Amino acid sequence: MPRLRLALAQTNPIVGDFAGNSQQILAAAHAAWEAGADLLLAGEMAVSGYPIEDLASQPSFLRAASAAVPALARRLAEDGLGGLIVVVGHPEGPIEPRTLGTSNAPTAIAQNCASVLQGGEVRARYAKHHLPNYSVFDEYRVFIPGDELLVLRLDRPGEPGVDAALIICEDLWRDGGPVGRVLQADAGLLLVINASPFERDKDETRLPLVTRRAKETGTVVAYANIVGGQDELVFDGDSVVVDGAGAILARAPRFREHLLLVDVDAAAASDAPLPDAVRRVAVPARPMVEPLAATPPVRDIALPPDDREQLWNALVLGVRDYVEKNGFPSVVLGLSGGIDSSVCASIAADAIGADRVYGVSMPSRYSSEGSRTDADELAERIGLHYSTEAIAGLVQPIDDQLRLTGTAAENVQARIRGLILMAESNLHGHLVLTTGNKTELSVGYSTIYGDSAGGFAPIKDVPKMLVWDLARWRNQAAIARGETPPIPENSITKPPSAELRPDQTDQDTLPPYELLDEILEGYVNQRLGREDLIATGFDRETVGRVADLVDRAEWKRRQGAIGPKISGMAFGRDRRMPITSRRSGLD
Amino acid sequence: MPRLRLALAQTNPIVGDFAGNSQQILAAAHAAWEAGADLLLAGEMAVSGYPIEDLASQPSFLRAASAAVPALARRLAEDGLGGLIVVVGHPEGPIEPRTLGTSNAPTAIAQNCASVLQGGEVRARYAKHHLPNYSVFDEYRVFIPGDELLVLRLDRPGEPGVDAALIICEDLWRDGGPVGRVLQADAGLLLVINASPFERDKDETRLPLVTRRAKETGTVVAYANIVGGQDELVFDGDSVVVDGAGAILARAPRFREHLLLVDVDAAAASDAPLPDAVRRVAVPARPMVEPLAATPPVRDIALPPDDREQLWNALVLGVRDYVEKNGFPSVVLGLSGGIDSSVCASIAADAIGADRVYGVSMPSRYSSEGSRTDADELAERIGLHYSTEAIAGLVQPIDDQLRLTGTAAENVQARIRGLILMAESNLHGHLVLTTGNKTELSVGYSTIYGDSAGGFAPIKDVPKMLVWDLARWRNQAAIARGETPPIPENSITKPPSAELRPDQTDQDTLPPYELLDEILEGYVNQRLGREDLIATGFDRETVGRVADLVDRAEWKRRQGAIGPKISGMAFGRDRRMPITSRRSGLD
Repeated sequence: MPRLRLALAQTNPIVGDFAGNSQQILAAAHAAWEAGADLLLAGEMAVSGYPIEDLASQPSFLRAASAAVPALARRLAEDGLGGLIVVVGHPEGPIEPRTLGTSNAPTAIAQNCASVLQGGEVRARYAKHHLPNYSVFDEYRVFIPGDELLVLRLDRPGEPGVDAALIICEDLWRDGGPVGRVLQADAGLLLVINASPFERDKDETRLPLVTRRAKETGTVVAYANIVGGQDELVFDGDSVVVDGAGAILARAPRFREHLLLVDVDAAAASDAPLPDAVRRVAVPARPMVEPLAATPPVRDIALPPDDREQLWNALVLGVRDYVEKNGFPSVVLGLSGGIDSSVCASIAADAIGADRVYGVSMPSRYSSEGSRTDADELAERIGLHYSTEAIAGLVQPIDDQLRLTGTAAENVQARIRGLILMAESNLHGHLVLTTGNKTELSVGYSTIYGDSAGGFAPIKDVPKMLVWDLARWRNQAAIARGETPPIPENSITKPPSAELRPDQTDQDTLPPYELLDEILEGYVNQRLGREDLIATGFDRETVGRVADLVDRAEWKRRQGAIGPKISGMAFGRDRRMPITSRRSGLD
Repeated sequence: MPRLRLALAQTNPIVGDFAGNSQQILAAAHAAWEAGADLLLAGEMAVSGYPIEDLASQPSFLRAASAAVPALARRLAEDGLGGLIVVVGHPEGPIEPRTLGTSNAPTAIAQNCASVLQGGEVRARYAKHHLPNYSVFDEYRVFIPGDELLVLRLDRPGEPGVDAALIICEDLWRDGGPVGRVLQADAGLLLVINASPFERDKDETRLPLVTRRAKETGTVVAYANIVGGQDELVFDGDSVVVDGAGAILARAPRFREHLLLVDVDAAAASDAPLPDAVRRVAVPARPMVEPLAATPPVRDIALPPDDREQLWNALVLGVRDYVEKNGFPSVVLGLSGGIDSSVCASIAADAIGADRVYGVSMPSRYSSEGSRTDADELAERIGLHYSTEAIAGLVQPIDDQLRLTGTAAENVQARIRGLILMAESNLHGHLVLTTGNKTELSVGYSTIYGDSAGGFAPIKDVPKMLVWDLARWRNQAAIARGETPPIPENSITKPPSAELRPDQTDQDTLPPYELLDEILEGYVNQRLGREDLIATGFDRETVGRVADLVDRAEWKRRQGAIGPKISGMAFGRDRRMPITSRRSGLD
């Protein structure tokens, strides 16, 4: 069987940064060429970043994206890389709108494309057939599906050629989609470019899918994914090459940029006629160089890390890329001594270094001595910048003038803290991190414009029980590396409290977190109804109370900061619920 | 030609309030039956409210919605209305998911349906074919399209029957959609149920479309729309019946509930065989009662009111329904004496009555005497509840403790005002209205967690120039009715200022509003690029500055309150843009 050397570029694009994104691909192409690769496979939308959302309906954006692709082809040739076959993802447009028959509706004017660059030109192009329009994805909204399959005939002088079919992400997932036609086309290699975001346990579906498709088609499957944080999404990379028997030939690390090199033996191309709507384009391969030096054993890089390590890495990457891609010099957050702010501070320090993290302790008259010393200790352990602003003298004049008591007075404390952090942001350019967890966001246990104030919410998709779990894991990881555990033990073990009134604990208001998180897993993540939950054994009154809290907090969530999605059902683009609603005749 | 009496129920449903929504339809059915109607046509999703967003993926919601429909049929029969043919819209499910081949993707499990009720049962059902998935609509995300057309054979004893085809909203808009097959089916009547939201100038496309379809098919078209505010959307009603020559036979008022009655002469049904995938169901019509007393001349109710009156009514309805459907006793807003808060107060008073509107003047040391007296005068003219909270004594301790100057200090003033309004909300249950206009939101000319704090934003889709225009119109309308104009003349004529520092005006920071609104119309509403705008004659530096402001304010808008959409491109569900982005190689 003919042998080919593939390079998979796991780049970290920024939406709209065509020059920077192209530069990353160019650098990967240089390295791939030097290593003797025939073909470089970059990720879906690697030229434009992903998701571009409604920028796909902006003609000027599309013109720039479309121009960046031939420009990259020319630059590759100018740099002496014209012999390399380079596959890149990008939006292509504006093209003739998909006609919907309505005179005032915006229509899709772009396709989600893969272009094949060689010899200074765009040699071929494939448009994605299957457009995901569920969960966080709105591709049917903004793209026009393609209707033609592309096969590249890779010919090396003096050797039989290999037919490589090229598809994009969702195309691989759909049964009966383009992959079915790859079988008919007799391709020896299936190239898949992807922008597949991280989700907890997604590797339990993604890798088996790639393996299954490889076995179904008997072809080598090369799966290239992008990496990096983009608003709510974290792309984890995890690019992989699997042979036709389903064995992993090479696998890239997760959560960082990487160039994956691998030699594959692919079935020789046949002379069978092509099925309908399949186009074949010949692209010459370079003369083969000597075999690759032994790649690291696949096992070393193939095993997914501990679940909590994955989650931690996803959160760290989400924070790092939001900070870096938006050009913030530093972050600031309130340190209460509690578990949420401690975990957020620790994530931030892992993301951008403790010297760019500013923690502010903002004790009130209800803050316990323990809270203050826990916050002090956290700051000390992490080594972040630390300051204290007591809020009593700022809150009292407000309470006095407005004659506030009860909830109104409690919220003032939280809002003064939010105001202080925003003032620090105005003064120093810090990004404000807001430290609410998913459990709080679910039930609205937060003060809007108070503790929810901020530009990014590192743990908004992390339920409270998992916050504790991650804290314990992070401390253990530090111990295993001989480092100081960042999070004070007391912050992990003490009962959680908002400390907005004397002797308050979260459990004055909420069910125990063990129970609450289980109900929320059902009501929010699994979309179960109240009666469904009661039928599984939960107490009727508790289910009703929790579900009511979730429904009523929708307006707060709609105004919440974005943060990294790690679950199958994150608040944000992933879950779109009305604010105005009533329940009658509903379970 | 056989004559039929149609009743169109323009109801105002609330999402999830199956009991209340059904009650509205039942009341309309009683009135229709008494008036001798053969058929009552309610709106799309009149049983469930619209849009239900991801509730369409929640099985318990669908079970309740699906159960409400036969329950309504039974109730109609129990009330002696079993002879009436009642068409209602609702989601139907859960049904077998649309298979996407992915193991972890949520899939659509519902259809957007019209059910035909008669004799205590559901006699027939139609599922919408064309699912809008652009602008604010996400129907392809949550619904499975139907694939069968439905024709009702309306038979009256001793008369030839009439075939009535039944379709849903978007089905009417698509060329080559179900309407094309109605032609083949030889229907004499086309029933269309709709949930079509208001947009400025939409009646310039909607009515001509209905008329065109009527002429194309030569059939009477009965177009029933819902009415009312639902989060960002305002449904304006405007239900209409047009004959096969394109003449308007009857038209319902906009922005309020209505039962529209009309006699139509429809072509008799033929015995021609039905095209493929068209099902015909016989539903008997009652014996004809005497002709309707003369309906009001169509001209009286058909003429759309003045554009500004329409816009005003849309904003008023949006505010009223957000308040009422979410159960707020009252609203509170800050009164600065400026145009935005004056217009918002006036809208609120028109929506729910001045006795439920609380205005708070919050002067700082930079507030001019004119601002205070303008706010006083507005409160006096409108007759709302009015109080004053000076903020200097609350701001000073913060500035002192945090050593704030410049922007940081300016923002503290706005945030203390937001805090005061939220405290009033906590104390009294008021909904806080935030008074930012679309121009401010576009360029981020607001303080997040300050003046942007609030649950609803009445004029968030109204550009500044239009705010002035609406203010002048509202005052003129008052004069025309012999009432006191609500908005002080000085609030309209004085130069706008945030008054966060001495002698500040908006134009210190922003281009003149005339120019700014024109650039924003192009950059935001028309999705033009920078070079596109410069090519039309705008100054390069100004375009660049404005476009940069718009791009950088995305994070603030993402955290903004919802408010009524009145344009073709509102911030919110209508415009989905990334926060993280960079520009290189872009115009």
